[in-house]
Amino acid sequence: MINIAILGFGTVGGGVYEVISRCKKKPLSDVNIKYILDLRSFPEHPIGDRVTQDIDKILSDDSVSVVVETMGGDGVAYKFSLAALKAGKNVVTSNKAVVDKFGKELEAVAAENGVVYLYEASVGGGIPIIAPINNCFKADDITRVAGILNGTTNYILTHMQSEGKSLEEALASAQKLGYAEADPHADLAGLDSARKIAILSGIAFDKYISFESIPYVEGIEGVTSEDIALAEQLGCVIRLIAVAEKVGDKARILVAPHLVGNGSLFSAIREAFNAVSVTGSAVGEVVFYGQGAGSLPTAAAVCGDIERAISGSAKTVTRNDCEPDFIIGADPEAERFITLANGKKYRYFE
Amino acid sequence: MINIAILGFGTVGGGVYEVISRCKKKPLSDVNIKYILDLRSFPEHPIGDRVTQDIDKILSDDSVSVVVETMGGDGVAYKFSLAALKAGKNVVTSNKAVVDKFGKELEAVAAENGVVYLYEASVGGGIPIIAPINNCFKADDITRVAGILNGTTNYILTHMQSEGKSLEEALASAQKLGYAEADPHADLAGLDSARKIAILSGIAFDKYISFESIPYVEGIEGVTSEDIALAEQLGCVIRLIAVAEKVGDKARILVAPHLVGNGSLFSAIREAFNAVSVTGSAVGEVVFYGQGAGSLPTAAAVCGDIERAISGSAKTVTRNDCEPDFIIGADPEAERFITLANGKKYRYFE
Repeated sequence: MINIAILGFGTVGGGVYEVISRCKKKPLSDVNIKYILDLRSFPEHPIGDRVTQDIDKILSDDSVSVVVETMGGDGVAYKFSLAALKAGKNVVTSNKAVVDKFGKELEAVAAENGVVYLYEASVGGGIPIIAPINNCFKADDITRVAGILNGTTNYILTHMQSEGKSLEEALASAQKLGYAEADPHADLAGLDSARKIAILSGIAFDKYISFESIPYVEGIEGVTSEDIALAEQLGCVIRLIAVAEKVGDKARILVAPHLVGNGSLFSAIREAFNAVSVTGSAVGEVVFYGQGAGSLPTAAAVCGDIERAISGSAKTVTRNDCEPDFIIGADPEAERFITLANGKKYRYFE
Repeated sequence: MINIAILGFGTVGGGVYEVISRCKKKPLSDVNIKYILDLRSFPEHPIGDRVTQDIDKILSDDSVSVVVETMGGDGVAYKFSLAALKAGKNVVTSNKAVVDKFGKELEAVAAENGVVYLYEASVGGGIPIIAPINNCFKADDITRVAGILNGTTNYILTHMQSEGKSLEEALASAQKLGYAEADPHADLAGLDSARKIAILSGIAFDKYISFESIPYVEGIEGVTSEDIALAEQLGCVIRLIAVAEKVGDKARILVAPHLVGNGSLFSAIREAFNAVSVTGSAVGEVVFYGQGAGSLPTAAAVCGDIERAISGSAKTVTRNDCEPDFIIGADPEAERFITLANGKKYRYFE
């Protein structure tokens, strides 16, 4: 029996319960969710009796080896993660805001305490991307990481194209399907993608890169149905792409809508799906594709981390500090642009 | 300093030297290739002086912690791998023939001796696929693994389509580019794909599944330019796909040319590239794409395994035996076929 606690029993936390209760493979089949920390109560839920509002009960229980943080936000979620690591518990999370803001401190505290802080689910939902970069590309020199990292905007761009909808109409249908938040600003403005490329590029380039240090973030608010139709005439689609590319010993990191040629892999990423492209100087381009959000896909990634924490097959990664001039921003001279028939310029991704 | 030996200094073995000598990251930057076992000599090569023909010198050197088997074939390569594991050395390989035939024994011997037997590079070249399935999908129930696993046949099918070439013409150009062997039978007949799906499905379904137990293997020899043109009229391309799909508590495993709808991810896999699709009941479909062969991509995967062996982050996987009736074969009643205008039937992949 391996005891764990879930902090925050919402979409992802609830999914973690689902995945664990279905899993018949050791060691996850031996996992017992001993506590759920949530201010709400779940009287009808099969493990509703495990709910507590007392974090100290969890922290002081030596039988709890893994704390799953699926609360969201960067306040209490950070505080409890820090306390859990200090209490000698492994922490697994899907919370990109905490990873971005406090990842450096939390990784150091985990290493000091001989436990792990893992966050596979914070980027790309169910797509295994952080562990493969950490494990499989260690031998290689990564020259670029790029991704369609936000499902909401990709859904919107896909439907603006396939149904000739305006951005507002496509957004409304995304909201109806639960793909978009009530306040879609962070998605539409590219901020969610920027947070994710900060985490990914940090791991790829072995540095702590924060969301705030990304100099150029452009969302899809300026993309019109006309742009999409004109792009189609050039044999292209428009995708919101976050790119972190080595330029000498620096890295250009930005988020912007890009033209992508039909027939390329990124043009085949539709609806709310995500894709991440990693280029290494030896391995060439490798692409990872899957569902970037949703209860079960995200929970599957969280549970993969729980398994790795329990089995001891994951190590806490600690990285170097990022030199202040490492990140360079947009440079219209150096990047490749294509001009549409209406005069608008888009970056070209290949 | 971490001493390793490379058995077989051909395309992949030579690539391993390249990748290690470029790598500036610990622990790989501390690796010293102490021995190269090869019958040839390499007087001009920077480490040509490390060549030996004496395996016992390597096996009896306690300072050698990793043996890299990139010899090919399943005779001496197996014998030396077994001896190295018994001598307490980690073994890393790209050799699918040995993994398929002797993987069960070698994994058991590795586990007994407290070392690892790793073979990420044996399937999908540089694409990280075996480690992600072992590490990240542990929580999930994998219902299907499918892949374009052979670069040669994919190159041929792509060029039959784009240039209207016959199979013979496209094969000749693949051979000219070094994508196809002088004897292309194992590629064209689907045998190479079958070996790879045996390894992948075994890991996905947690059983030892051998190439010989795959009941239906059809290659691309029967695919004509006419078929490809007629498929195009239906909005499809033809791809050689290896599929292992759970059907109740059994699995249908086969290799065959399939129709794939334009716009699907697999239709965008062109030239000599590979792709592997893994479907889990929680995570949904995840696709991994990259170069399935070539000196440096394959060597990068080998070196990722070397890193994992050295750092202790990999564990030897041991699986269950495969029940004799677990694998079911082709079943025209249960599978989905599409008939082309010339009357030929193809399986449909989605």
